[in-house]
Amino acid sequence: MAEKIRVTVWSEYILEKEYEHIAAIYPSGIHEAIADIYREEAEFEVRAVTLQMPEQGLSQEILSQTDVLLWYGHMVHEQVEDEIVERIKKRVWEGMGLLLLHSSAQSKVFDRILGTTGEVRWREIGEKERVWVIDRSHPIVQGLPMYFDIPHSEMYGEPFEIPAPEELIFISWFAGGDVLRSGCCYHRGAGKVFYFGPGHEEYPIYYQKEIRQVMKNAVRWAAPGRGVQVSFGKTDALEEVEIFSPR
Amino acid sequence: MAEKIRVTVWSEYILEKEYEHIAAIYPSGIHEAIADIYREEAEFEVRAVTLQMPEQGLSQEILSQTDVLLWYGHMVHEQVEDEIVERIKKRVWEGMGLLLLHSSAQSKVFDRILGTTGEVRWREIGEKERVWVIDRSHPIVQGLPMYFDIPHSEMYGEPFEIPAPEELIFISWFAGGDVLRSGCCYHRGAGKVFYFGPGHEEYPIYYQKEIRQVMKNAVRWAAPGRGVQVSFGKTDALEEVEIFSPR
Amino acid sequence: MAEKIRVTVWSEYILEKEYEHIAAIYPSGIHEAIADIYREEAEFEVRAVTLQMPEQGLSQEILSQTDVLLWYGHMVHEQVEDEIVERIKKRVWEGMGLLLLHSSAQSKVFDRILGTTGEVRWREIGEKERVWVIDRSHPIVQGLPMYFDIPHSEMYGEPFEIPAPEELIFISWFAGGDVLRSGCCYHRGAGKVFYFGPGHEEYPIYYQKEIRQVMKNAVRWAAPGRGVQVSFGKTDALEEVEIFSPR
Amino acid sequence: MAEKIRVTVWSEYILEKEYEHIAAIYPSGIHEAIADIYREEAEFEVRAVTLQMPEQGLSQEILSQTDVLLWYGHMVHEQVEDEIVERIKKRVWEGMGLLLLHSSAQSKVFDRILGTTGEVRWREIGEKERVWVIDRSHPIVQGLPMYFDIPHSEMYGEPFEIPAPEELIFISWFAGGDVLRSGCCYHRGAGKVFYFGPGHEEYPIYYQKEIRQVMKNAVRWAAPGRGVQVSFGKTDALEEVEIFSPR
Repeated sequence: MAEKIRVTVWSEYILEKEYEHIAAIYPSGIHEAIADIYREEAEFEVRAVTLQMPEQGLSQEILSQTDVLLWYGHMVHEQVEDEIVERIKKRVWEGMGLLLLHSSAQSKVFDRILGTTGEVRWREIGEKERVWVIDRSHPIVQGLPMYFDIPHSEMYGEPFEIPAPEELIFISWFAGGDVLRSGCCYHRGAGKVFYFGPGHEEYPIYYQKEIRQVMKNAVRWAAPGRGVQVSFGKTDALEEVEIFSPR
Repeated sequence: MAEKIRVTVWSEYILEKEYEHIAAIYPSGIHEAIADIYREEAEFEVRAVTLQMPEQGLSQEILSQTDVLLWYGHMVHEQVEDEIVERIKKRVWEGMGLLLLHSSAQSKVFDRILGTTGEVRWREIGEKERVWVIDRSHPIVQGLPMYFDIPHSEMYGEPFEIPAPEELIFISWFAGGDVLRSGCCYHRGAGKVFYFGPGHEEYPIYYQKEIRQVMKNAVRWAAPGRGVQVSFGKTDALEEVEIFSPR
Repeated sequence: MAEKIRVTVWSEYILEKEYEHIAAIYPSGIHEAIADIYREEAEFEVRAVTLQMPEQGLSQEILSQTDVLLWYGHMVHEQVEDEIVERIKKRVWEGMGLLLLHSSAQSKVFDRILGTTGEVRWREIGEKERVWVIDRSHPIVQGLPMYFDIPHSEMYGEPFEIPAPEELIFISWFAGGDVLRSGCCYHRGAGKVFYFGPGHEEYPIYYQKEIRQVMKNAVRWAAPGRGVQVSFGKTDALEEVEIFSPR
Repeated sequence: MAEKIRVTVWSEYILEKEYEHIAAIYPSGIHEAIADIYREEAEFEVRAVTLQMPEQGLSQEILSQTDVLLWYGHMVHEQVEDEIVERIKKRVWEGMGLLLLHSSAQSKVFDRILGTTGEVRWREIGEKERVWVIDRSHPIVQGLPMYFDIPHSEMYGEPFEIPAPEELIFISWFAGGDVLRSGCCYHRGAGKVFYFGPGHEEYPIYYQKEIRQVMKNAVRWAAPGRGVQVSFGKTDALEEVEIFSPR
C-alpha cells in the first residue's frame, strides 16, 4: 500500500491552556504533540483537531477522510455531542481505526462503542509505571523491549470496567501496588480499536521513545485494509429450500 | 445456594395480539410461554412483564429483585425508553444476568451493552435450522445432543454485527445456505450476558425440549454469585512510594 | 447434583522430605495440605497421591474415578512417564477438570495439554505478591475481595509462555517490579483447565483463607457436567445432497 | 520491510503419486501447487519440500531460513519424526508463522502446538462448501466477498476438537448439514498459527481465486515482525524490596 495512512488526532485542549506546568510540557496542546509522532514518518498524513473547532473538530467530511482516529479526552467528556459520538461509532464499524488514550476510557466514545463507562481506581502522585509486553506476537509491540518504564505516571488501576480485551497487549505495574490491563485490542465490525493506558498531561509521556513506537505500531495495525463487502437485511435463500408458512 | 433464582421475562407483547396464527402458538404472549419454562423447576421464581406495564414493566424495584432478565423485543425496539435501558445496563454491570433472545440483537439494550445494532441477514421462509454445540465444556450445553434441529425457523445469518463472543456456544446451520453464531456469551462487570438466536414468534420454538434445556442452563449460568466487593475512583497507594509532583 | 465431586491431588512429594524448613510447613507433604482444603467441605471426596506410588499415583482406575485432578510438580517434571501424561490429557478432553498449580506451568502435563513449556522469569526472595481479581463475573472469584496479599511468595513473572488465557481471572503484582497472569482458564474438549500461580513450598500459602477460597471455587467450576454426547470420524450426510466424485 | 517473506511449503507427497485422478489435479504434488500461489508475488521467496527429502524436508537450516511454514499432511502423520515436530514447535514460539492446512488438523505438529488431535466428523461426497467471513476486520479476509463457495469439497465438520480460536475468521457451511470453524488463528510465543479448513487433494481447491487470496493474506499476517527481546529464568528484583527467607 503506497497510500498514506490518514491520521486524525482529537483532544479537548483545555488543561494545556489553564495550567502553566501543563503548557510547559505540551505548549501547542497534547493533540499537536501526539500528531508530531506521526509527522516523523512519511507513511502518515496527519491532522490535529479539538473540541473548540466547528462540529467539535469532527465533521462528517473529516471523519470520512480519516483512516485512524486518536481520541484524548479527560475533563469534559459530557460536552461531546451525542451526534458526534454516533458518527464515530458508525465509522468504526465501517472500518476506521480508533485509538483511545488514557482518560478516554471514561469518554462517551468509549462507552458507546464498548458499552462501559471504563471506571478505574486512580492516583496522581507521579509514581513509576512499568509497562510489560504480554503478547509478543502482536504487531503493536514489535521493536519494543520486554518491558519499559515510565518514570512518573498517573496510576490507573484494576478493577478496570472494560470488556475482556480480545487481545491483551500490555499489563502495567505501578509502584504503589496496582496493575492495569493497559493495552487492549477490540474488533468492531470492520474496525479495530486500541485502548492505551499511559499518557497523562502532567508528564512528558508522549515524548518517550517506547510510547512513540507503540503509537506508530498501533496506527499501522488499526488502519483499514481493502475490506469485505457485506450486506444486511432481507435476503433470498442461496440454496434451494422448501418454503413453510405457519399462516 | 438454596435460594431461588429470580427470573424476570420481558417482551413487547404486540404481535401475539395482532395475528391469529401467532396467538395460536403463544396465546398468553411469548413472555408467558418463556416464563413457563422456568415454572417447571422449583429452583426458579418467575415473573413475566411487558412493554405495556408501568415503567415498561421494569421498575427499579422489579429490576433490583431480578437475578436474571430475559429480553424478547422485535417490532418496537425504539419505544423502549432510554432510562429503562440505562437501568438494565447498570444492573448488568452490578451482576444481573441477561438473556437476549432472537430479534433482541437489534434492541436498544443489546446496543447499549454490547455497542452494536446487531444487524444480520434474515429470511422468513420457515426453513430448517440445525444448532451445533461448539463448546461442550460449557454449562449452557450440558445434557444436549451434539446438534439438534428446529424444523421451521426464521433465518438470521452472518454477517452478524456483534463483538466476537467471549465464549462461542452454538453455530446454526440453515438449509438455505447460511450460518450464524447463535449462542454467544459475554461478561460485563459482575454480570453475564447470553445471546441466543432461535425463537421467532411464528414457530413453536420455545416448546421444543432442547431449547428449554438451553434456556434453563443459561439462566443457571447467568445467575449472580456471591460477588466481589470493588471500589473505584481516587485511592491511596497500597505500597509506600515517593511522591513526584510536576508543579 | 447431590453427588460429591471426586478430587485427586497429585504431587511429587520430594522437597518436603529433603528440607526441614519445608517439612515444617507441610509436614505430611504439600498434597495432603491441599487435600485438606477439600476435606473441609462435605461436597468433596478427596484422595491424595504422589509420584512414588504405583503407576506414579495415577492408574487408569484412579483417573477414571476423578472429577478434578490437581497437579503440583516442581523439581522432577521429567520423571513423569509419558504414558501417564497421555492418560491425563485424554481424561481432560473427556471432561475431567484439571488444576495446574504454581511450578506445574513447566510440567509435561501443562506442555502436553497447552502446547508450551510455560517458561517464566522467577525470583525467590520472599517478596510480597498482590493478587488482583480481573474478571469479577467468574465463578472462581466469588466471595473474594478485589485483591488480596500473599506476604511472602516466589515471584513468577512475565513474559509467561502460555497461550492467551480464554478467561483471565487474576493478575499478580510483585513488589520487585513484576506482574503475572496468575489465574488462567482454558477449555479443552469437554474439560476445563485452570492454572493458578501462587503456591511455593517454602511459604504457607495453601493455608491462606483467600487461596483456599479460590481453590474450592476452581474445583467447583472445573467439575464436569452432564456432558454432550459427541461422535467423530466418517459420517453420512444429514441433509440430502447430490454426490460428486472426481474419479 | 523491503525484505521478502521466506515461505516453505511442506507436504507428504504420497497420494499424488498413487492416484491418477489426484495427479491429474496436482501433477507436481500439492506442495508445488501451493508454492505456486506465492510465486505469483514478488514479495515472497518460496521453497517446497516433502517427507521424502533428507531430514523429512525440514533441516534446522531450512527452518531457520523460514518465515512462514505451510503444512499439508494427510495419510502418514505418524511417520513424521518427533524431533522434526519439536523443531517446528520451537521455531513457532521464536516467531515463525505456521499455516496448517485441511487434514493437518490431525497431524503431530498440530497436536504438539495446540495440544489436541484435532478430530472432526468427515464425509467425502464432493458436496458444496460455503465459506463465510466472520471477522471482517482481520488481515486474512481483506479483499474477499462476504462468503464464497467451493463447488466440491471434503466435509470436515463439528465437533472439531480444537482450542477455541483466539480469532475466528471463517465458518464453513456444508450442503449435507454440517458447519466448521474453518479459519482459526492462534498466537504462540512470538509466532502466529492459522488453521485453514479447505483443501482436499481430490478437488482443485488450491487453484480457486478466493483460496489463493486467503493463503497470501494469511502468510503476510503470520510473517514475523521485528520481535521483542525476552529473557526467562532467574532474575534480580527490578525494584528494591526487602528479602525474606524462610530458612
